[in-house]
Amino acid sequence: MADTSGGPVLRVAVAGASGYAGGEVLRLLLGHPAYRAGRLEIGALTAGSNAGSTLGSLQPHLLPLADRVLAETTPEVLAGHDVVFLGLPHGQSAAIARLLPESTVIIDCGADFRLTDAAAWEKYYKSEHAGSWPYGLPELPGGRDRLRGATRIAVPGCYPTVSSLALAPAVAAGIVEPTVTVVAVSGTSGAGRKLDVGLLGSEVMGSARAYNIAGAHRHTPEIAQNLKLAAADGGAEVDIAVSFTPVLAPMPRGILATCTAALRPGVDAAQARAVYEKAYADEPFIHLLPEGVLPQTGSVLGSNAVTLQVAVDADAGQLVVIGAIDNLTKGTAGAAVQSMNLALGIDETAGLTTVGVAP
Amino acid sequence: MADTSGGPVLRVAVAGASGYAGGEVLRLLLGHPAYRAGRLEIGALTAGSNAGSTLGSLQPHLLPLADRVLAETTPEVLAGHDVVFLGLPHGQSAAIARLLPESTVIIDCGADFRLTDAAAWEKYYKSEHAGSWPYGLPELPGGRDRLRGATRIAVPGCYPTVSSLALAPAVAAGIVEPTVTVVAVSGTSGAGRKLDVGLLGSEVMGSARAYNIAGAHRHTPEIAQNLKLAAADGGAEVDIAVSFTPVLAPMPRGILATCTAALRPGVDAAQARAVYEKAYADEPFIHLLPEGVLPQTGSVLGSNAVTLQVAVDADAGQLVVIGAIDNLTKGTAGAAVQSMNLALGIDETAGLTTVGVAP
Amino acid sequence: MADTSGGPVLRVAVAGASGYAGGEVLRLLLGHPAYRAGRLEIGALTAGSNAGSTLGSLQPHLLPLADRVLAETTPEVLAGHDVVFLGLPHGQSAAIARLLPESTVIIDCGADFRLTDAAAWEKYYKSEHAGSWPYGLPELPGGRDRLRGATRIAVPGCYPTVSSLALAPAVAAGIVEPTVTVVAVSGTSGAGRKLDVGLLGSEVMGSARAYNIAGAHRHTPEIAQNLKLAAADGGAEVDIAVSFTPVLAPMPRGILATCTAALRPGVDAAQARAVYEKAYADEPFIHLLPEGVLPQTGSVLGSNAVTLQVAVDADAGQLVVIGAIDNLTKGTAGAAVQSMNLALGIDETAGLTTVGVAP
Amino acid sequence: MADTSGGPVLRVAVAGASGYAGGEVLRLLLGHPAYRAGRLEIGALTAGSNAGSTLGSLQPHLLPLADRVLAETTPEVLAGHDVVFLGLPHGQSAAIARLLPESTVIIDCGADFRLTDAAAWEKYYKSEHAGSWPYGLPELPGGRDRLRGATRIAVPGCYPTVSSLALAPAVAAGIVEPTVTVVAVSGTSGAGRKLDVGLLGSEVMGSARAYNIAGAHRHTPEIAQNLKLAAADGGAEVDIAVSFTPVLAPMPRGILATCTAALRPGVDAAQARAVYEKAYADEPFIHLLPEGVLPQTGSVLGSNAVTLQVAVDADAGQLVVIGAIDNLTKGTAGAAVQSMNLALGIDETAGLTTVGVAP
Repeated sequence: MADTSGGPVLRVAVAGASGYAGGEVLRLLLGHPAYRAGRLEIGALTAGSNAGSTLGSLQPHLLPLADRVLAETTPEVLAGHDVVFLGLPHGQSAAIARLLPESTVIIDCGADFRLTDAAAWEKYYKSEHAGSWPYGLPELPGGRDRLRGATRIAVPGCYPTVSSLALAPAVAAGIVEPTVTVVAVSGTSGAGRKLDVGLLGSEVMGSARAYNIAGAHRHTPEIAQNLKLAAADGGAEVDIAVSFTPVLAPMPRGILATCTAALRPGVDAAQARAVYEKAYADEPFIHLLPEGVLPQTGSVLGSNAVTLQVAVDADAGQLVVIGAIDNLTKGTAGAAVQSMNLALGIDETAGLTTVGVAP
Repeated sequence: MADTSGGPVLRVAVAGASGYAGGEVLRLLLGHPAYRAGRLEIGALTAGSNAGSTLGSLQPHLLPLADRVLAETTPEVLAGHDVVFLGLPHGQSAAIARLLPESTVIIDCGADFRLTDAAAWEKYYKSEHAGSWPYGLPELPGGRDRLRGATRIAVPGCYPTVSSLALAPAVAAGIVEPTVTVVAVSGTSGAGRKLDVGLLGSEVMGSARAYNIAGAHRHTPEIAQNLKLAAADGGAEVDIAVSFTPVLAPMPRGILATCTAALRPGVDAAQARAVYEKAYADEPFIHLLPEGVLPQTGSVLGSNAVTLQVAVDADAGQLVVIGAIDNLTKGTAGAAVQSMNLALGIDETAGLTTVGVAP
Repeated sequence: MADTSGGPVLRVAVAGASGYAGGEVLRLLLGHPAYRAGRLEIGALTAGSNAGSTLGSLQPHLLPLADRVLAETTPEVLAGHDVVFLGLPHGQSAAIARLLPESTVIIDCGADFRLTDAAAWEKYYKSEHAGSWPYGLPELPGGRDRLRGATRIAVPGCYPTVSSLALAPAVAAGIVEPTVTVVAVSGTSGAGRKLDVGLLGSEVMGSARAYNIAGAHRHTPEIAQNLKLAAADGGAEVDIAVSFTPVLAPMPRGILATCTAALRPGVDAAQARAVYEKAYADEPFIHLLPEGVLPQTGSVLGSNAVTLQVAVDADAGQLVVIGAIDNLTKGTAGAAVQSMNLALGIDETAGLTTVGVAP
Repeated sequence: MADTSGGPVLRVAVAGASGYAGGEVLRLLLGHPAYRAGRLEIGALTAGSNAGSTLGSLQPHLLPLADRVLAETTPEVLAGHDVVFLGLPHGQSAAIARLLPESTVIIDCGADFRLTDAAAWEKYYKSEHAGSWPYGLPELPGGRDRLRGATRIAVPGCYPTVSSLALAPAVAAGIVEPTVTVVAVSGTSGAGRKLDVGLLGSEVMGSARAYNIAGAHRHTPEIAQNLKLAAADGGAEVDIAVSFTPVLAPMPRGILATCTAALRPGVDAAQARAVYEKAYADEPFIHLLPEGVLPQTGSVLGSNAVTLQVAVDADAGQLVVIGAIDNLTKGTAGAAVQSMNLALGIDETAGLTTVGVAP
């Protein structure tokens, strides 16, 4: 199935095609070389309350698919595809997945299968734990091995993606204390296409606000899980305490994460930078920017890149790492496509770019 | 030279690579199939006062070219390329072009060679007319014929692109009176990367303002020129009076043009729509939206699409046409690449998409 | 009742206090000199589905009233006030007004009583005409006389406010033909605090779109009504044809209207300007800007000012008038307070400013 | 001089009237009750390179002063005023102040006299320390006493204002460890009206970026100075280590600060909240929001309010305090007017409001 140059044509379905995650998956698929070469076909597009509408009325930026009509999200409709992307509300993926063949590559953009710890799941999501699937962040230690050939994939949360990538090298290298602070500014699409007064343009524009502070955000245990894995990769069995504050900013896309942690004694700026240079030297999507150059979300708009800068605040004794991603691309749909590529044995970067749309 | 699948590799230079037009040309070239296939090479990148800087420090969204250093914009540096894109301040293109071989395909994103009428040029640009080059709007009557094989191309202005495409079918079909009103809302990148207090984020955000009203904007005669050509295509030798008002809106990209003209007696909505359906039935980048669906600039962000809607205001006796483009893509760099494709005999749509980045 | 310096304290209620219009009325009342002097009391605050909530949870910018709890909107709750502002969905005002004493000053920010022509009402609002009340635009011919001592007032629509003030002098002076084109760019608060996918921040930011084009917007007959009145003031009994296109722009507040009309032969720029200078010489809130200076909505944010510029496009034979207002202030709540002042015999400008909040 | 109801009229000058700080001082003065009562006169308005221009061409939102012409900023022009506000580039205030009478109340919106520690000044500003003046943050311990009757006042930086007020109670009460992390999201006006490519609307909109990270921002020592003073007020002579990261967000105004610090053992959420309730119970401008309600900058636009929320992250062992201000009002010009009021013995809140302009 993995051969996109001559084998059978891949059939791909997108459940939740009227949402932001589903729309971004489709945007990326339409630019995927397999699609352009006729080796990947966009099959069923499904939705919940929007079933019956044309995609053009809901996602007017996807002109080539404008006339497609959305079907109901049911296992029957999704059957018969090689790859199924799920962009569903939390809690709906397990039921769908159970009824699809094991050989179908299911890539869940929702949270249901991200956490390995049932207690953490229940504490944060107030529901029964459905289990965990291979985690779609190839750049974490062991990430690619988990994804190659996988048929069930949990796409990471947007905040955990950038926060974990920003902190994992320092944690793995043991150069920081095991308490980290993440303050991450996000565009509004991270909240989904949800009818909520607080997400109206009139309320959002010209204003910044924090929400779900002091450990209340569901992405907190996911960051901790990733950093614990990073620590283990560095040989330390420790829990990482994560103080996480999400901030909503007046922009449609993008996350800028400011990550700080107390430096272990004796670590200087050059050593800290070297840790990151080594960790990400061969990563196609992670760019440690030249010294002094700072990430900005506008530069990664629509791209799968993660831009990072690392600095040492000697006076305060802190490591400061800044990371930027597009929450819908690398933070969701880009990771989903990257994971699909790995699962199918296609070139990992196919259909993804490190070129942003700016200004 | 036109064969990108097997012939010699095309060498392309971009003068003015630190500006918005130049940056967008580079963004599109990096995604061009000829570039991906190794048949197109990005050669010299030049700038004015930014010469000597890395592209990464000026265009941080173009990560694959981040380490490239900008050269001075001189004919020597630009020589030896098959295609040269010029994104220079008005008035500088002629001197450069004169010193490059005739066989070099020069694609000027500036205004210097857009107007055919020397008097109009002198009135609006207060300088000597340099002449006119084939005009890079393939969708105008005769547009493709002028561009195939051309080695000198004048890329249209962003406002004239959408305004002319919105009005040309009605003018050509003779269903409107020869006075048109265009009010076009533009994002700020249309003004270029210019240090001007009025373009600071603090001044722009949360505010809309008109500028260069009452015929003062230089794009006015360009719209009139295009519409006169459309009228001639319909068999009428008439001047079209253009009342043009540009409005700056708080967004980085996009133009939404509202075009109105008095309907000729007896023309109804169905007839008006039919005129547009016929005119653009085969155009790959122009999409007449379903009845009642209105264009929005956010849906064409980063895409080369033009979305249109046409309606009749029977009470006021007016035809109303709304058009949306991305001013940097179809409005500048996309038209430039589309023109390059035509000039070189490549598939006209190569490297261009009708899929926008949204939300 | 009109004496705010020594008579009985005015009791003021606001129905619809959780909406944008109601919130802006309260913002202005909190800064009104009568309130500061203890001569005006903010009484009942009511809402529909938000009844029972604190104002602080809904209008967090109104800190001095944060603990006030919203009551249900009923005639009983609103009784016993001297002034009642209504910020209700269309169609609800008549029923409320009928049950309040005739002496109560009722100021309706909704549309119900704006149109004098029942046929126009029924065509645009698809419901029975409730009648018409004195129209709260003091700057129109005869406006102040209609409002002094009035106990029922219909606050104008936001688009009609700026469009009518921009065009009325020219229409009254007979210097333009009786067909006008208005393209008005509006911030999102004009649509109200409505749960609508198209008003989400993610959809709105970075995008401009037209809506209700070609005469479909309900403010069209209101502009025509005002301009007919202006024409009559100039001695002409004519209908004015209005081609009106509203455009939604990514900003919370503000309307920038571009108004064009064919100039009558022989009228030059100086004459046109003189018409406006004369018309608005004594208006406290209308500012004809110096020649060449253009209105911007950011400069009137939170202010009751209308800024205008007038120009002649000699080539196209058009008069172009640009006007800017804050749609929530002069466009709604400011007009409401200005009308209240006139109705009560207070200084018309009390509690209103021409100083904007910028940048 | 303090009696505004009957004594001599106060003459007030503003140096730097073309900048954002100067413009905001003027906006507030135009609404000040002493101005409205004719007891405060706006005298000289001065500028640097903008001298000779009208205020209307530079600050079009200040319509009542539109015709005023800016003078050069010289001691001669500023002499003869009772109060002089300085909104000058860093380093220019001392020379001006030296030449004005000691009795003139000089209120410096710049940084020159904020830091008491010459070494800190020299490290961060790379110039000789000019000394320190009473610090214009009345809400800090001892703040009002320092300002009553003062004739030289240093207005705090915008970031230090909100950060210090957010953290001072916890530091004074000794409930946190002496290392604090502040990540503060700011609107662009905080950078001033500066011609800088990175501040262009095209670059700013749709993008967030950190800058001057890892202790490089000049406001870092100012926050530390304030928190040391708070600690001393609580009886502890300790230095507070401040990890400060400023983030630029796409909005014109507002700062949202996320402040975290490790909680001392045994402190719970109720105790933390009680500390803040007590500290700010009588403060007219500081509002501790109801539990669970989070500050947003849009709610304090144009107001002098500081909204705070405090929470305990028990898992991470951190106190999290979120604060919002308008950087130009409470963060600059509001503090300046509040300080003027205190210096002159006027009601501290005169001319200032806690009502924001929203949405």
